[in-house]
Amino acid sequence: MADTYDLIIIGGGPAGIAAGIYGARKALKILLLTKDFIGQTGKTAWVENYPGFLEISGSDLMGKFKEHLQKFPVEIKEGEKVKSLVKKESVFEIGLENNGKYLGQAVIVAGGRKPRLLNIPGEAEFSNKGVSYCSICDAPLFKNKEVVVVGGGNAGFEAAIDLLPYAQRISILEIGAKVIADEMSQRKVEGSGRVEIILEAKALEIKGKKFVEGLIYQNLKSGEVRELSVQGIFVQIGSLPMVEFLKDSNLVEFNQSGEIVVDPKTGATRTAGLFAAGDTTDVKYKQIGVAVGEGIKAALSAHEHLQRQ
Amino acid sequence: MADTYDLIIIGGGPAGIAAGIYGARKALKILLLTKDFIGQTGKTAWVENYPGFLEISGSDLMGKFKEHLQKFPVEIKEGEKVKSLVKKESVFEIGLENNGKYLGQAVIVAGGRKPRLLNIPGEAEFSNKGVSYCSICDAPLFKNKEVVVVGGGNAGFEAAIDLLPYAQRISILEIGAKVIADEMSQRKVEGSGRVEIILEAKALEIKGKKFVEGLIYQNLKSGEVRELSVQGIFVQIGSLPMVEFLKDSNLVEFNQSGEIVVDPKTGATRTAGLFAAGDTTDVKYKQIGVAVGEGIKAALSAHEHLQRQ
Repeated sequence: MADTYDLIIIGGGPAGIAAGIYGARKALKILLLTKDFIGQTGKTAWVENYPGFLEISGSDLMGKFKEHLQKFPVEIKEGEKVKSLVKKESVFEIGLENNGKYLGQAVIVAGGRKPRLLNIPGEAEFSNKGVSYCSICDAPLFKNKEVVVVGGGNAGFEAAIDLLPYAQRISILEIGAKVIADEMSQRKVEGSGRVEIILEAKALEIKGKKFVEGLIYQNLKSGEVRELSVQGIFVQIGSLPMVEFLKDSNLVEFNQSGEIVVDPKTGATRTAGLFAAGDTTDVKYKQIGVAVGEGIKAALSAHEHLQRQ
Repeated sequence: MADTYDLIIIGGGPAGIAAGIYGARKALKILLLTKDFIGQTGKTAWVENYPGFLEISGSDLMGKFKEHLQKFPVEIKEGEKVKSLVKKESVFEIGLENNGKYLGQAVIVAGGRKPRLLNIPGEAEFSNKGVSYCSICDAPLFKNKEVVVVGGGNAGFEAAIDLLPYAQRISILEIGAKVIADEMSQRKVEGSGRVEIILEAKALEIKGKKFVEGLIYQNLKSGEVRELSVQGIFVQIGSLPMVEFLKDSNLVEFNQSGEIVVDPKTGATRTAGLFAAGDTTDVKYKQIGVAVGEGIKAALSAHEHLQRQ
């Protein structure tokens, strides 16, 4: 039988790492499971609003967080994907996609978010073959190419800004009648004179042979269907919480956005011993500094829960 | 008539500074009023649990926070003590002890906490003449002296540990029947063999001429009154939120500990436009990383409030 940990933390972003640091300082026996230590923060070009660091790349900040965590005796398993979470009497059993199993007296879910997909034909087929969800990561691959960004919000405009030094032609496709990005981002994009904005346009299908060659979209006003000839498609239509492994468990309540509902004072879910923190929850503001604070709360609450047992 | 700021932040600790950084990034016209940029964090010897900094002195961390804030166009007035806060129609008027007045559309109260006093004869008279509330600041002044720490909780034991390299003899006075400090601190103190712990002892009076010469206390079990001959008295009996200027205003609700009750999702108080964050509120965990997160929430909520106006 596997060892039982005091606390298992799912997720290696700011919330999970902060929880690990605090849990370790309370001398808990901790296992932290994570796909990687990148997440949304690691894919951010520049972080200028995490207090204490005037300007730091997202990947450097994640590096510092990880180094801080590793100072403490927390067992870390990287490259793990969680498939299931069940509670058996007072112990939680976590099942991994590789069929591994771990037991914990308490669990903190801090899995963060993942990009929302277009769910159109060709998207899965051409993922990493021209379809990207991370402009910071992939913009340099599109030097002198024609690209389209799907999504006219902040993320879409920021992706266009990331692409400006590389791509030859950039379009932004927005499904609504107007863009909703910040003034400042809009001005940067307009100032470049090199970004075409296509409103009321719905992406329908991604075309190509080995790599992306075009995006078919419909003008929602005229009904007309057109094809944009592009080699790159950046999907920037929001994100979803990483909660699949909880969907059928009945252990937590979800809000309308599919986020885990927590007590904002403690990170507690509706199941005793199960906590959640950061962008995967219904916390109102999805910010690094907020996720850190919520991770700390969840760890201290988990410690209190274990003390009471 | 004075200018009206979009947002006035009261307090220059982790919560106030985080709020300032986020408010400035939303292009708000901000005034930050603070007594100083020290507070409880600045008086902490080592901070090992603010994610991103493996080990940093509290004063260095406050220095980094302040430097980060100063990168943005936030007007800062240091050395200011707030005396009153009133709401006149939709605008807040802040009165200072020096009779200055400032107007703001929104206010974030993030004044932190201050040491709880013994409230016994001699305490005020001998403050800074042997009576101290900050072991980090003042321990070196008591080289080869006899000192007493009043309070047998974590803070009291940490003060005793700070004093070990300096003081000749150290007593800890605890009013209860047992000490309540962490195992680890207790072991350090016991290991030194130089700290005497006096239980069930209530401080009654501080004696001296120009400087402290002794502490009179009563043994609560026997009723006996004794005098400890000491040159230093470190008071470590907890802290109180800095909220005097709000006491008569009726603008906020207080909990039983005198802390400002806030909506934990937004930092909102019961008065529209008035927010609070950090250790001055009923936030459950008083931690630097938590205060940062709550400060960010308050700033983003204040911004939303101003947008709606």
